Amino acid sequence: MARLVPVSDPGDPRLADYVRLRDVNLRKSLETEHGLFIAEGEKVIRRAVGTGYPARSFLMARRWVEPLADLLDEVNAPVYVADDATVEAVAGFQVHRGALASMERLPVPSVAETVRGVRRILILEDLVDHANVGSIYRCAAALGVDAVVLSPRCADPLYRRAIKVSMGAVFAVPYARMTNWHDDLGIIRGAGFGLLALTPDQSAVPLDKAPMGERVALMLGSEGDGLSSRWLAEADEAVCIPMSPAAMANGVDSLNVVAAAAIACHGLMRA
Amino acid sequence: MARLVPVSDPGDPRLADYVRLRDVNLRKSLETEHGLFIAEGEKVIRRAVGTGYPARSFLMARRWVEPLADLLDEVNAPVYVADDATVEAVAGFQVHRGALASMERLPVPSVAETVRGVRRILILEDLVDHANVGSIYRCAAALGVDAVVLSPRCADPLYRRAIKVSMGAVFAVPYARMTNWHDDLGIIRGAGFGLLALTPDQSAVPLDKAPMGERVALMLGSEGDGLSSRWLAEADEAVCIPMSPAAMANGVDSLNVVAAAAIACHGLMRA
Ligand SMILES: C[S@@+](CC[C@H](N)C(=O)[O-])C[C@H]1O[C@@H](n2cnc3c(N)ncnc32)[C@H](O)[C@@H]1O
Ligand SMILES: C[S@@+](CC[C@H](N)C(=O)[O-])C[C@H]1O[C@@H](n2cnc3c(N)ncnc32)[C@H](O)[C@@H]1O
Repeated sequence: MARLVPVSDPGDPRLADYVRLRDVNLRKSLETEHGLFIAEGEKVIRRAVGTGYPARSFLMARRWVEPLADLLDEVNAPVYVADDATVEAVAGFQVHRGALASMERLPVPSVAETVRGVRRILILEDLVDHANVGSIYRCAAALGVDAVVLSPRCADPLYRRAIKVSMGAVFAVPYARMTNWHDDLGIIRGAGFGLLALTPDQSAVPLDKAPMGERVALMLGSEGDGLSSRWLAEADEAVCIPMSPAAMANGVDSLNVVAAAAIACHGLMRA
Repeated sequence: MARLVPVSDPGDPRLADYVRLRDVNLRKSLETEHGLFIAEGEKVIRRAVGTGYPARSFLMARRWVEPLADLLDEVNAPVYVADDATVEAVAGFQVHRGALASMERLPVPSVAETVRGVRRILILEDLVDHANVGSIYRCAAALGVDAVVLSPRCADPLYRRAIKVSMGAVFAVPYARMTNWHDDLGIIRGAGFGLLALTPDQSAVPLDKAPMGERVALMLGSEGDGLSSRWLAEADEAVCIPMSPAAMANGVDSLNVVAAAAIACHGLMRA
């Protein structure tokens, strides 16, 4: 049976996992420190639990208990039940999707484990925007990419906004986070991957002509700087998506990284 | 010479164009009523002026006058100069990009005029998210799409966030807004375009096999509902981007509309 616990004090220490969900800096340190992440809404909660993440607790208005009853019965974690005003006072905004869950993070596998036995991966360098990271997971899942490798500074895919934008794809695509920006590309090359660096530089090899071997890793860079010169130099090939010369003259000189990822993953799928 | 006008009262009626820039509803009605839009930052202001939009006024801290001096000298509009706190009090947030300009909207050409003589267009149905609309303009510009046609309910591409996300591409790509959702596809078909409806439905014709005639219009639908059944029925062909069957089983059953637009525009470019 679900352990329903009525709560009404927004300052209740048992609700500490859920405070100020829109305060990015606070959440980053709180979630890292306690090894948790927040799942929002029935669909996302079901996927997080289904993926094997243990629930620490739930927080929701009374009316959300019923639709989640089967899951709440199964999971051994307290269900804090509060009125909407209390939930809002804790979370700092009106939680439209109703139910919240605080989930325990699991150890992320190493880069070597993650790329073992797979054929198509993305490597993201320093993408700090949660929405971009989430969107790229959605592309990766939809377009059959096997895994994602994040540079040490990439945004957290289990941050609430990234989960939401990914439509839950962060639970579908295995991923690893590099511990060493300087050396970890070597692990991937050592596993037999051809490293293709995606760059807006139109003198690079066009995507359609790029060498798609048995194992391909597509490297994508950040909105501001693009890929670092070190990573560009380490790649086997620099690859570009051809753009309109007129647009480039007009100041539109690159694609958004999500658009570039989508086109490149589509290209991978056909390779 | 630039007409510099020192201001210090956030309630000054001459600053009414700039109030509460983050209040979407207020801004929508204010900008429509007065036929204006806001350009933010030196780069965007230069592009807006370069595109031919007349400036109503400018608002900035003293230090931004110098970098924009050439443009401010040329344009006959008052330049309100205030300290950062005053700008923040008016705009409702800290304006990092410094300079703001209130620009006059120009009459948007008709659908018939916009599609005359061009070969590749996008038609967006009811995309209400400003970031999605802005991102799609960026893709369209970078990938050589000639024009965009918006359904009556689409988000405004000249809304501040759309301009920003588009990286100014909303100034580079001609566009029209339909006046009649029910009938205006007919104008486009009448101009000789083949209408391709992009749909996640995997039984549709795959993009690579889609008939790309002399004139092609790609139709894209909204995040929630996708294309309406009326527009799907009016299309010459329903076209899909193939997705991973495993992902679909996992609940990732469509691409984000920006990702779909990117892949489809890339496909158009090669056609
Ligand atoms: C906005 S771009 C970075 C722009 C940066 N100024 C540069 O020159 O790399 C972000 C990332 O998207 C990818 N990208 C953008 N446009 C691309 C294109 N036309 N071809 C290939 N990759 C592209 C690259 O991986 C790039 O690092
Ligand atoms: C998020 S999808 C809409 C999902 C909606 N449930 C549906 O079934 O249409 C938004 C738009 O992106 C485009 N889209 C998304 N995935 C696509 C795919 N695999 N192939 C073609 N178009 C796609 C379509 O134009 C769609 O209307």
